[in-house]
Amino acid sequence: MLSKEENDLLTRVGPGTPMGSLFRRFWLPAVLSEEIAQPDSAPVRLRILSEDLLAFRDSSGRVGLVDAYCAHRGAPLFFARNEQGGLRCAYHGWKFDVEGNCVDIPNDCRIKDNPRVLAACSIGSYPVVEAGGVVWVYMGPKDRMPPPPNFEWTRVPEGHRHVSRWLQRSNWLQGAEGEIDSSHISFLHQELDPAESALGVTGADLAVDGAPVITLKDMAYGFASAARRSRGEDYFWRISQWVAPMFSLIPRAPSPFFTGSGGRAWVPVDDYNTVTFAYSFRPDRPLSDEELELINGGAHFPPRTRKVALALGDRGPIDVFVPEAGMDNDYMIDRQMQRTRNFTGIWGVNAQDRSVQEGMRAAPSSPIGIVDRTKERLMGSDIAIVTARRKLLAMVKDLQQGIEPAAASDVTHYTARAISSISATGSLDQYLSEYEAPQPSHAEH
Amino acid sequence: MLSKEENDLLTRVGPGTPMGSLFRRFWLPAVLSEEIAQPDSAPVRLRILSEDLLAFRDSSGRVGLVDAYCAHRGAPLFFARNEQGGLRCAYHGWKFDVEGNCVDIPNDCRIKDNPRVLAACSIGSYPVVEAGGVVWVYMGPKDRMPPPPNFEWTRVPEGHRHVSRWLQRSNWLQGAEGEIDSSHISFLHQELDPAESALGVTGADLAVDGAPVITLKDMAYGFASAARRSRGEDYFWRISQWVAPMFSLIPRAPSPFFTGSGGRAWVPVDDYNTVTFAYSFRPDRPLSDEELELINGGAHFPPRTRKVALALGDRGPIDVFVPEAGMDNDYMIDRQMQRTRNFTGIWGVNAQDRSVQEGMRAAPSSPIGIVDRTKERLMGSDIAIVTARRKLLAMVKDLQQGIEPAAASDVTHYTARAISSISATGSLDQYLSEYEAPQPSHAEH
Amino acid sequence: MLSKEENDLLTRVGPGTPMGSLFRRFWLPAVLSEEIAQPDSAPVRLRILSEDLLAFRDSSGRVGLVDAYCAHRGAPLFFARNEQGGLRCAYHGWKFDVEGNCVDIPNDCRIKDNPRVLAACSIGSYPVVEAGGVVWVYMGPKDRMPPPPNFEWTRVPEGHRHVSRWLQRSNWLQGAEGEIDSSHISFLHQELDPAESALGVTGADLAVDGAPVITLKDMAYGFASAARRSRGEDYFWRISQWVAPMFSLIPRAPSPFFTGSGGRAWVPVDDYNTVTFAYSFRPDRPLSDEELELINGGAHFPPRTRKVALALGDRGPIDVFVPEAGMDNDYMIDRQMQRTRNFTGIWGVNAQDRSVQEGMRAAPSSPIGIVDRTKERLMGSDIAIVTARRKLLAMVKDLQQGIEPAAASDVTHYTARAISSISATGSLDQYLSEYEAPQPSHAEH
Repeated sequence: MLSKEENDLLTRVGPGTPMGSLFRRFWLPAVLSEEIAQPDSAPVRLRILSEDLLAFRDSSGRVGLVDAYCAHRGAPLFFARNEQGGLRCAYHGWKFDVEGNCVDIPNDCRIKDNPRVLAACSIGSYPVVEAGGVVWVYMGPKDRMPPPPNFEWTRVPEGHRHVSRWLQRSNWLQGAEGEIDSSHISFLHQELDPAESALGVTGADLAVDGAPVITLKDMAYGFASAARRSRGEDYFWRISQWVAPMFSLIPRAPSPFFTGSGGRAWVPVDDYNTVTFAYSFRPDRPLSDEELELINGGAHFPPRTRKVALALGDRGPIDVFVPEAGMDNDYMIDRQMQRTRNFTGIWGVNAQDRSVQEGMRAAPSSPIGIVDRTKERLMGSDIAIVTARRKLLAMVKDLQQGIEPAAASDVTHYTARAISSISATGSLDQYLSEYEAPQPSHAEH
Repeated sequence: MLSKEENDLLTRVGPGTPMGSLFRRFWLPAVLSEEIAQPDSAPVRLRILSEDLLAFRDSSGRVGLVDAYCAHRGAPLFFARNEQGGLRCAYHGWKFDVEGNCVDIPNDCRIKDNPRVLAACSIGSYPVVEAGGVVWVYMGPKDRMPPPPNFEWTRVPEGHRHVSRWLQRSNWLQGAEGEIDSSHISFLHQELDPAESALGVTGADLAVDGAPVITLKDMAYGFASAARRSRGEDYFWRISQWVAPMFSLIPRAPSPFFTGSGGRAWVPVDDYNTVTFAYSFRPDRPLSDEELELINGGAHFPPRTRKVALALGDRGPIDVFVPEAGMDNDYMIDRQMQRTRNFTGIWGVNAQDRSVQEGMRAAPSSPIGIVDRTKERLMGSDIAIVTARRKLLAMVKDLQQGIEPAAASDVTHYTARAISSISATGSLDQYLSEYEAPQPSHAEH
Repeated sequence: MLSKEENDLLTRVGPGTPMGSLFRRFWLPAVLSEEIAQPDSAPVRLRILSEDLLAFRDSSGRVGLVDAYCAHRGAPLFFARNEQGGLRCAYHGWKFDVEGNCVDIPNDCRIKDNPRVLAACSIGSYPVVEAGGVVWVYMGPKDRMPPPPNFEWTRVPEGHRHVSRWLQRSNWLQGAEGEIDSSHISFLHQELDPAESALGVTGADLAVDGAPVITLKDMAYGFASAARRSRGEDYFWRISQWVAPMFSLIPRAPSPFFTGSGGRAWVPVDDYNTVTFAYSFRPDRPLSDEELELINGGAHFPPRTRKVALALGDRGPIDVFVPEAGMDNDYMIDRQMQRTRNFTGIWGVNAQDRSVQEGMRAAPSSPIGIVDRTKERLMGSDIAIVTARRKLLAMVKDLQQGIEPAAASDVTHYTARAISSISATGSLDQYLSEYEAPQPSHAEH
């Protein structure tokens, strides 16, 4: 349970907000590289931390993440021509490169070639890097820029990995909290017939013991956690990581079914909308056709989506993947299926998650999308959520005092790896020490 | 005409508002019994007085009207499993019975069976009764609970009655005022060709004399009224009742066409939306197939509707019947029909009502849906509206002073009956004394 | 660049705002005469300066522009019967003539024929005139009424002219500023293949010289401007006029293609929506079938539209023509066409305009639709925009001091005529003195 003030502090992410400022200390996933694969292809409209941005790739392949509006009179640069090294505004032909520099003002006879004027007409831009099939952005102060993203999944060869993104109609924290909440899997994602299990989670594994013993370990990047479930004479262990402010490392289930580790990142669009980035990967070999077919089928992450231009609230459109199953169609719930096939009657793991996260009780005088955390009843099973909130609040308050978040410059998560195991013995510490991703090579730093 | 303050006082109904508190002194229709006919069937999402509730029937047939969100972390219980005596939340499996008691917390190994913890994790619930094919709810203080609903129409055998509900896109008072406004019938519902009259209202009856003489009589439950229209040498009398805060008893027209008495109740969803409950019944015998066909045809009440999950404002969806003809399609107005067939060019009595009520001039700085009552020009023909407002304001202000509304515990409306008559003589008092519904038997109390 | 206060001052137009008051000193286009061509036809719902109005033509052909709601209880008069000299409200039959006088109250037996009561029950109405195929309204103080509209295009015979109107989803000023911004034509409306030029603007004319030399001349009505573009050894001259507060006179291009002069007026619906009125005309002869086909084809003004009832914000619907290409479908942009055919990849001159105007960067804490003018970088090419703003701000501030706008009673624009020319010599003064529309005859005053 949080006070109203604490809930506001963690959920409000627009320019100038404390939590928005904390997010701006981290590299954030912005867009998939494949969405702007071709040089001079159409720009993609993003909104991150309530700021309107455009992602585009210029003629020479460089990626820019720039202010979505022209410096001249605020026309939307989405309609610009992406040509010869920059975006040329459709209104008067002003042109901007990937760094936001104004490189041409062709509509004024007196200042066309005046470098001083051009210099005064740049648009905002943010540093980007491409890693793991994702364009990442750093939106904070230049002198606080942390090392670039370096998760195990960003380092594996391209064919070993699948990345995706889609819209969740809730505040970022509602999604991120679901990620680190181990016990819900036994209920929300339970298949009544274990043979149907989408997660490879069977009655013998996750579903039977819905009250796992949870252990946390503080880490420089956030925490690692173990959820231990009884499974006959053995335990079923799941070791996962929360990397501040909102990355997860989730192990694959010990089944022949789901074949890669994975995880998510929850990037705030605004206070009420989030883009979920998901990755699946194999450290050891490329994903097989069968695995890719499974991933693209929509049963886990990503859900089935279509890419649309979507106006949110009273703002202009963004370009985003929208799930087919959503609040507007009750996530395609089938009550008969709920009686006989799975716990929810909803198909697909992510749709199941969104069905309980997007429509949570709204905070007082808030639109739907931010849950009222003053009315919760948290239990021991919520220890990971409680801990993440406590750590985030501490970071937010520290930053308000001028103390930078240590987690932003963490390098220990480079070797973090989520794992699962069936064993009668073990401990979180033991699993963490036994299973590590390889250190990045020098070239990958 | 009301002052802005008075208008706000009567139209704002959310938690903590004076009018909302007054509503909470009465039993209110919440949902049709048939919508949750089967044990363990899907719950129905309601919003009443701006509060999100779920109606469901448990395995043993008991009905619950409970808070729509889980006590744990606010997940929407609409997606819960309705199984073995309660709703089991889809997120972590917490389970709640029809009284809102938490009966299981299966996801925490330490508190699964701890009765003290369970007791602290209940969700809100309200007392319900089923009467007249409707689930009624009492949302007020327990020690102020009035006797259960007991209208004549709730007491007749099931086959004698038809009940329905649907959404009106306006504040409750705009609908309720139309109900007690006798003179509009001669205009809004007039058929230019009397033979076509949907209300059985012909030129010789309602339509000819659009300026009825209206008499009111104060009653413990609200008031009774007589509208007397000239009809050649006779009068056409209509005796109807307003039962606080928003019930109506309306007589059938003296025609072979419409065969039961009826009326409505106007239950606020929020400040801008209302669920209209309508009933038709015969005291003397079951409704015939022909009568049911007529009622279900949509020409009067209910209109033609379809049941949908509808998001209102910036809140989540509710489950409600939405009329086919609405503001978004101009109530399917046909201007040619308006010239030749009826007064409005709109088909269906309720669509005619909504066409003039939903789109009324909005109060300053209000969305459409609350009419600006500071700009009215009320006449003698509006005496019933003026009187109802006066009584409601008095009750609201009394309640603010701690004086409970006497109307809430009224029993005299048990025998109220609306009637119509064609007669050269008569008076309201005389009709009221001659025509009464039978007293409820002991078992019906 | 404007301060936030100045931007608010120019863009907020509702009742009581300074800019709204300035607009109320001018005759404003309200609706096309052809939309209410027939006596007793359906009324048309308008919203002008945030005020809800109905336009209708009565049995004798008189046009009324009246308050959209009944004086009685605020019912929407759109659903009224337009019959025998007035609108009869569908709710209780109250009747209002084109001047808003209440001429019948049929539902009250005591006051039906009471002239004193009728007089107290009028609804608001505004003076109208029909000119140029348009119904014009004057919404200001009666004693400040200026002479009726008298542009050259309003005086030519009916067959010489085409008028249209449609919705722009932005504040009025964003549209009006585009109108007087000469340089954008070389970019936004450029055809990469000159032969395809929709404006008759070819590489040799507008497109080649995107940085025209612009000259302004103060006029009693606003200003006249010349944009001079280099064209080989000649200049391409365009002389146009801005007539306060938001009328434009635009010359036809010197090509065989577009055959009439034209212009627009930008009438605020509310702060975020505008109805654009457009006219094309020939002073010398009727528009040919070929010309009308071209105009109606949608390539310039008007765009392709359909007439709909459209709810805006949280208000009721208005009747308006909505363009097929809009923000919700990204103006049907075709990126391949943008590479090979024209500058934008968008078909149609007006859709091109709206693509850059409607989605401009929103002012802080404003919905999309009002551009943030505190973040602009204006150049010499924006001199017309800067000047118009300065003049408008001066008029607004004068009016706040009680000084009436001289432009409202201007008669010099009666002879204003936009022209274009290809010539090695010339000046704005010279063109203005050489080319004038004929003075209106006495009858046209």
